Amino acid sequence: MRDVAIIGVGCTKFGELWNKSFRALGIEAGMKAMEDANLSGSEVDGIFIGNMSAGRFINQQHIDALIADYSGMATHHIPATRVEAGGASGGVAFRQAVMAVASGMNDVVLVGGAEKMTDLDDASINSVMDATADADWEAGMGVTFASLHAMIAQRMIHDGIATREEIASFAVNSHFHGALNPNAQFRKAVPIETVLKSGPVATPLGMFDCAPISDGAASLVLCPLEDAKKYTDSYVKVSAVTQASDTLALAQRPDITSYGATVAAAERAYKQVGITAADISVAEVHDVYTVAGIMALQDLGFYKRGEAGKAVLEGQCQLGGSGVTINTSGGLKARGHPIGATGVAQVAEIVEQLRGSADKRQVENAKYGLAQSSGGMGSAVTVSIMEAI
Amino acid sequence: MRDVAIIGVGCTKFGELWNKSFRALGIEAGMKAMEDANLSGSEVDGIFIGNMSAGRFINQQHIDALIADYSGMATHHIPATRVEAGGASGGVAFRQAVMAVASGMNDVVLVGGAEKMTDLDDASINSVMDATADADWEAGMGVTFASLHAMIAQRMIHDGIATREEIASFAVNSHFHGALNPNAQFRKAVPIETVLKSGPVATPLGMFDCAPISDGAASLVLCPLEDAKKYTDSYVKVSAVTQASDTLALAQRPDITSYGATVAAAERAYKQVGITAADISVAEVHDVYTVAGIMALQDLGFYKRGEAGKAVLEGQCQLGGSGVTINTSGGLKARGHPIGATGVAQVAEIVEQLRGSADKRQVENAKYGLAQSSGGMGSAVTVSIMEAI
Repeated sequence: MRDVAIIGVGCTKFGELWNKSFRALGIEAGMKAMEDANLSGSEVDGIFIGNMSAGRFINQQHIDALIADYSGMATHHIPATRVEAGGASGGVAFRQAVMAVASGMNDVVLVGGAEKMTDLDDASINSVMDATADADWEAGMGVTFASLHAMIAQRMIHDGIATREEIASFAVNSHFHGALNPNAQFRKAVPIETVLKSGPVATPLGMFDCAPISDGAASLVLCPLEDAKKYTDSYVKVSAVTQASDTLALAQRPDITSYGATVAAAERAYKQVGITAADISVAEVHDVYTVAGIMALQDLGFYKRGEAGKAVLEGQCQLGGSGVTINTSGGLKARGHPIGATGVAQVAEIVEQLRGSADKRQVENAKYGLAQSSGGMGSAVTVSIMEAI
Repeated sequence: MRDVAIIGVGCTKFGELWNKSFRALGIEAGMKAMEDANLSGSEVDGIFIGNMSAGRFINQQHIDALIADYSGMATHHIPATRVEAGGASGGVAFRQAVMAVASGMNDVVLVGGAEKMTDLDDASINSVMDATADADWEAGMGVTFASLHAMIAQRMIHDGIATREEIASFAVNSHFHGALNPNAQFRKAVPIETVLKSGPVATPLGMFDCAPISDGAASLVLCPLEDAKKYTDSYVKVSAVTQASDTLALAQRPDITSYGATVAAAERAYKQVGITAADISVAEVHDVYTVAGIMALQDLGFYKRGEAGKAVLEGQCQLGGSGVTINTSGGLKARGHPIGATGVAQVAEIVEQLRGSADKRQVENAKYGLAQSSGGMGSAVTVSIMEAI
């Protein structure tokens, strides 16, 4: 298989974007990525789109054809493929695109991730999101993602894996970085008191433990590594993209304080690159709830079980901290979480870091960066490792 | 890239299966395919699922994790990916699976396609299906798939490409074969009068011009061609799987009596294999409406523009006829059309034909077989060519 490079990235602002349609957001991100890669649509020979639920959010399925059409690429009948894996939709789309280039099936591939969530009322939005849990054994029983994450938090606190303050500190870390990201939905640093005193959602989690509902899109351009220099001097190498599944229902797991799919995908990725977690300088993890962020740091091997919360509370994961710098984009919590876009935006942030274009969020001298994308309750997870050239 | 073989196929019965759940159907098809390939779940290292809209039909998204979970394969954290491309979802899932094996990323891949449609009322079902048209410029204006196909039929009749009788004869062909398929939804041959006199749906199309609403699932097992003999003596080679897109809205096309995506995908496939349409002995085409079947025969190059309808009316495409034998499974019209399953079931039928296990539907001495899967109004099309070994 061929080595693959990322030669362009593009993100829209994330937020409540009532004056921008789904298709307008998708095209904006794609055009930015193509401009960044110095190429035109006629040079692209494949499209992969991550989208969770436009069928329910905006009554539009067949997003593959929609994007091919509105980008003007349907005129040369480009193959376009939409993938869905709940919250990991963007991560899985990226993986399929890497596979397409690595295999030689495509030469220049556009990856897009997009979601338009704020056109629905809150109850309907929750109903859509709960459909990525187990409809028969979870959602149908009245369980929501907030309550599932709250159960994990309760268990972590009970077992002494993390304290309430440590869990809350993940939001402080994300908001600190979000304040530095011009595309973030929330650009304000918050003290831990704000998180701890925020309105209750599902005990012990409050409003500031939860990622927001967002609109937005993100895009990447990939090509074979050996061709990257034809387009740009500013690119990174994709060293590994792995994917793993787990049971759909949380209740089926032997342990709810660790995601087996994250552990498996990370182990496969490190092995493929020949490195360990200690070699990663910067990472984007799926902090859809603060507690999921803490779990990710342990499951990815950055910290031992019981030590991640303390590290985050101490500021080790913040820019300039002593540990791996986490969620410089602001993460799902502060950058925002337009579901299908998230996994793609995470990779885009790592690319910015590794090529040195992350501006005020820049981590110095990073060689390896990692992105973890998660669907449902860690039922589908991708782990991507990128390398500076 | 490695050559790929199909070593197992499995289909459920298609129909109004009120006593079988989505997950039960998916597992039934998968187990049949694995049994057919003489392997167990622990030997599978990747899953690809084609599903159009479980999120709306049964309020369940994240079908990738659902199938990994209920097949027991989530215990070894298998990567599982769901793709959607409207009616081409199954065809695109098959293509992604072929890519995974061809690239070396996976060795033994399970492809599944499934849809559970009949749990909703008719109006809701139509609303889901219309979401694969252009929501803003077609569905939102009140246009349905039936009326879009009726417009094409009107145009074909007006332009002298096919008569009303010729268009209707496509259903006669499909029902003739469906009567021979134990898994078909409708197992009754019908005379052309039945089609012509069936209740009006959208002039000139009547009830018998339209594929039914169905529940069902289909599955395939793939591995590298060089490994196929380890599992079975009864396998076929995948010679090409191509994919093409077109505008989402029919109104954006220069000509509505031909699908550019079918033409493009077919040309690419024939070129890749080094054959022409004349080398194909048996094909499954996407006859979601009779008129779409007639178009497919022309766009795939089996007949010149204006000649397909006449050929079908004459019985050339029926078992024992002088032309390429079309839709021996009964096609979407008579076998049924559980949307995500259709593209996978088409490939399964071609495998049965090429390995000589099609029983009463058997086409003799077929070397090459073709399957065409279409999403929306030909907005995403896959063309697969399989070869007897």
